[in-house]
Amino acid sequence: MQRTVASVVGDKGSDVFFVVPGDTVYHALEVMADKNIGSVLVFDDGTLVGILSERDYARKVILVDRGSKETAVVDIMTTQLNTVEPATTVTACMELMTE
Amino acid sequence: MQRTVASVVGDKGSDVFFVVPGDTVYHALEVMADKNIGSVLVFDDGTLVGILSERDYARKVILVDRGSKETAVVDIMTTQLNTVEPATTVTACMELMTE
Repeated sequence: MQRTVASVVGDKGSDVFFVVPGDTVYHALEVMADKNIGSVLVFDDGTLVGILSERDYARKVILVDRGSKETAVVDIMTTQLNTVEPATTVTACMELMTE
Repeated sequence: MQRTVASVVGDKGSDVFFVVPGDTVYHALEVMADKNIGSVLVFDDGTLVGILSERDYARKVILVDRGSKETAVVDIMTTQLNTVEPATTVTACMELMTE
């Protein structure tokens, strides 16, 4: 039987960590390091507005002459969010991420 | 049938990009952005000595008061390398990465 998202989340736990749009990228990096995660959700007044990943940081800060302490999360976060269901298989997730 | 590493590599192509230990982290970020990849292998005189990932960059540079233009790849690369075989399943890879 193929593993599903529900099974992975069951193993990893369902705690979700987030920052707000006005936080600095540096603060988001601290949260990611503290929680040992590779991305954080961005919530604005209770609404999910984006996600900030190590990829966003690696691509959109120093390479365009910005600094993590002077850049706000909102300026580099990814706002196009792809979601899956608990019953989605791990293989389907991999394919989605590879597209 | 579960997908294997060989199948994924077949889809993605087998080009491998690398940097050398003395390159700056900034240069490695440029290579990753240019090739649209999340990590680069580090070769020293033809020998594989490590891998540098977005995770290494997010954790081991600005949070410890370093800069990407003054830090060498060798100072933050990951040297403990986990490898898989072409016949390894995608699910087994996911489990290895989640450990």
